[in-house]
Amino acid sequence: MDAVTIIRTKRDGGELSDEQIRWFLETYTRGGLPDEQASALLMAVFFRGMSARELATWTASMIASGERLQLGDLGRPTVDKHSTGGVGDKVSLVLCPLVAACGPAVPQLSGRGLGHTGGTLDKMEAIPGWQAALSPEAMTAQLREVGAVICAAGAGLAPADRKLYALRDVTGTVESIPLIASSIMSKKIAEGTESLVLNVTTGSGAFMRDLGDARRLAETMVAIGTRAGVRTSAVLSWMDRPLGRAVGNALEVTESVEALRGGGPDDLREITLALAVEMLHLTGVDRDPADVLSSGGALPVWDAMVRAQGGDPDAVLPVATERHLVRAARSGYVTALDAFGVGVCAWRLGAGRARKEDPVSAIAGVVCLARPGDVVEEGQPVLELHLDDPARLPYALEALDGAIEIGAEPPAPRPIVIDVIRS
Amino acid sequence: MDAVTIIRTKRDGGELSDEQIRWFLETYTRGGLPDEQASALLMAVFFRGMSARELATWTASMIASGERLQLGDLGRPTVDKHSTGGVGDKVSLVLCPLVAACGPAVPQLSGRGLGHTGGTLDKMEAIPGWQAALSPEAMTAQLREVGAVICAAGAGLAPADRKLYALRDVTGTVESIPLIASSIMSKKIAEGTESLVLNVTTGSGAFMRDLGDARRLAETMVAIGTRAGVRTSAVLSWMDRPLGRAVGNALEVTESVEALRGGGPDDLREITLALAVEMLHLTGVDRDPADVLSSGGALPVWDAMVRAQGGDPDAVLPVATERHLVRAARSGYVTALDAFGVGVCAWRLGAGRARKEDPVSAIAGVVCLARPGDVVEEGQPVLELHLDDPARLPYALEALDGAIEIGAEPPAPRPIVIDVIRS
Repeated sequence: MDAVTIIRTKRDGGELSDEQIRWFLETYTRGGLPDEQASALLMAVFFRGMSARELATWTASMIASGERLQLGDLGRPTVDKHSTGGVGDKVSLVLCPLVAACGPAVPQLSGRGLGHTGGTLDKMEAIPGWQAALSPEAMTAQLREVGAVICAAGAGLAPADRKLYALRDVTGTVESIPLIASSIMSKKIAEGTESLVLNVTTGSGAFMRDLGDARRLAETMVAIGTRAGVRTSAVLSWMDRPLGRAVGNALEVTESVEALRGGGPDDLREITLALAVEMLHLTGVDRDPADVLSSGGALPVWDAMVRAQGGDPDAVLPVATERHLVRAARSGYVTALDAFGVGVCAWRLGAGRARKEDPVSAIAGVVCLARPGDVVEEGQPVLELHLDDPARLPYALEALDGAIEIGAEPPAPRPIVIDVIRS
Repeated sequence: MDAVTIIRTKRDGGELSDEQIRWFLETYTRGGLPDEQASALLMAVFFRGMSARELATWTASMIASGERLQLGDLGRPTVDKHSTGGVGDKVSLVLCPLVAACGPAVPQLSGRGLGHTGGTLDKMEAIPGWQAALSPEAMTAQLREVGAVICAAGAGLAPADRKLYALRDVTGTVESIPLIASSIMSKKIAEGTESLVLNVTTGSGAFMRDLGDARRLAETMVAIGTRAGVRTSAVLSWMDRPLGRAVGNALEVTESVEALRGGGPDDLREITLALAVEMLHLTGVDRDPADVLSSGGALPVWDAMVRAQGGDPDAVLPVATERHLVRAARSGYVTALDAFGVGVCAWRLGAGRARKEDPVSAIAGVVCLARPGDVVEEGQPVLELHLDDPARLPYALEALDGAIEIGAEPPAPRPIVIDVIRS
């Protein structure tokens, strides 16, 4: 085996053999190949892509680089959800207890936020006492007792992916659909779930801004999961405006609990139910999640899962004392509220981090007082900025330049779900 | 300035600014950027190419990374030749004294061979006592006194190119026309010549096997040189059969001296004169090099240049005592003699090196007793292999598999020069 031959083969549009892929990833992960050879191969993959067979082997090699969890016999099917992220995307907090309340066990291994999109663990950590880190044994025990767990993925899952991701980050090779798909899927398959529903978002606030790219990513991930023996489907949805009204860690926990009580914003309810329906469909559980959600039937599971990880579900969450209102520049209909602008604003207020090691603020964020379709009068507050560090306000406000559009006509109503992609 | 932005810009087909190119190459050369970022950029350049403006700045940045020789006032124009290499390509040995005998000074900074193509310095070193290394002062002095010098390029010329080339070698980014062109031209421009003629070869024994690629490389290099103020043109020629009869270091010196005496093989004479005509054209010298070559008028310059570097032009060169004949499998016309096969055979016999630090044999090589167009009888010797290590013979013979073609009809005669490309 020879790294240059492998790089040149991919560069010239050839297909790599399974042996070549396994050797390259295994050798690179254990430090036997230098970063410059790996980055050259990644850039060649950016341009040439990978066949379904190459991608399956690539993903399997990343899984093989670490441990693969065995969730054991829980006496109920397991199903997880993964989202490519968004602004105000607190879906996991509602969906995980909701699906568990319907029957299946939900092992939701999550990450932290980076950039303008939030991370599920950052949100949960706004709950006093709640701990993200669980051993595999504690996670399995909680799944058996509560049926639902949101926790940090252990460092033992797909270490090759962690090394490759760090390299992609500094070599301009992040934006490659096969590399994104294998990165996500290697971790999700390694966590041991039987079924998986992907929420692939698109629009200004999403990682995949282009709908065509988002669809290709969804199809690619569904193919990888299916090939690896995980029942997988994907829900494609819009992320061009914030999801719900709350953007920010504690703010989103509060809104999630409203939804678990049967209330909360319509769009959060719509996407959560679409994903729940798909998760129940994959696991063969015949229940209507809408009834469970409306009746507050998932709330006891939420309480139990928060408690199991040291959190107090009844605790009063921290609230900002410092607030700043952004007002409508004219009267009319709100026609657009740019997810990216609001996301960057919340990030700059302290809700997100620029580097992995940065802390996040539980308090900081943005509440959307008016949303697309709403009528506003000139001077009426549209956004309420929550902050704990006033020095951050001017830079955060810059992100809102052009983010609020007001017009004479209401925007056409539009469902948030674009499509469901099944294998 | 930010390396990832630069990589992504090139990756997505954008043009880099002069500032971006200068910053990247300068910072990388002094160790301020890691190899993995440079290799990602090189791979992006492989796929996206470079505009003429980008390439001029890229080349200028590589030149600026080191010293640029000042040949000073020699009282005569200066002109150099560079070849992209081939099998039996001893043109420099004849051309350098020939052009100097016609008037211009020829500072021929040369390299060593790697792989199946020989290196001019390796050939000259077959002459007892001859030294490749010259200080810039000694080189200038020899140019003034003799008018001709073949010597090693100093390590001070374009050090960025040396670092980038080593990286390209291990990252599958060698075969990129803009990168090849800027690598060659940065060193040639830095050596301080006023005019430059490029011999771009194509065919099985050449670096550019495809004629279209060879033509693009020639055009690209002529454009770079012209933009940098060096009068530049290129002669495109065939390298699908060995040039002349001799392949190997001492063997090629002997054949070169025959040519300098007015004899030698036709194809060597033809390409040498085509390049000489172009070199004299660029320097505005109105002399017919054919007369000078036929009359042996370049021989005194050869003798002087060999002596000036410690060599004895009258020394008897080392000769192989061990020889092996490869015979015609049938009677007929030799229709093809594959340059690559013969080149690899000579390399394996010891005439070339696999790694930079390997020594080469002066003696080893191949003499083509019959050449395309010749009539041979079954069993008649076609190739004479010269060796100093019999253990190398079996592996060397393998390279000749299918290299000799014999047919009933003679091959169509064909001039060696394909085209001349001027700015």
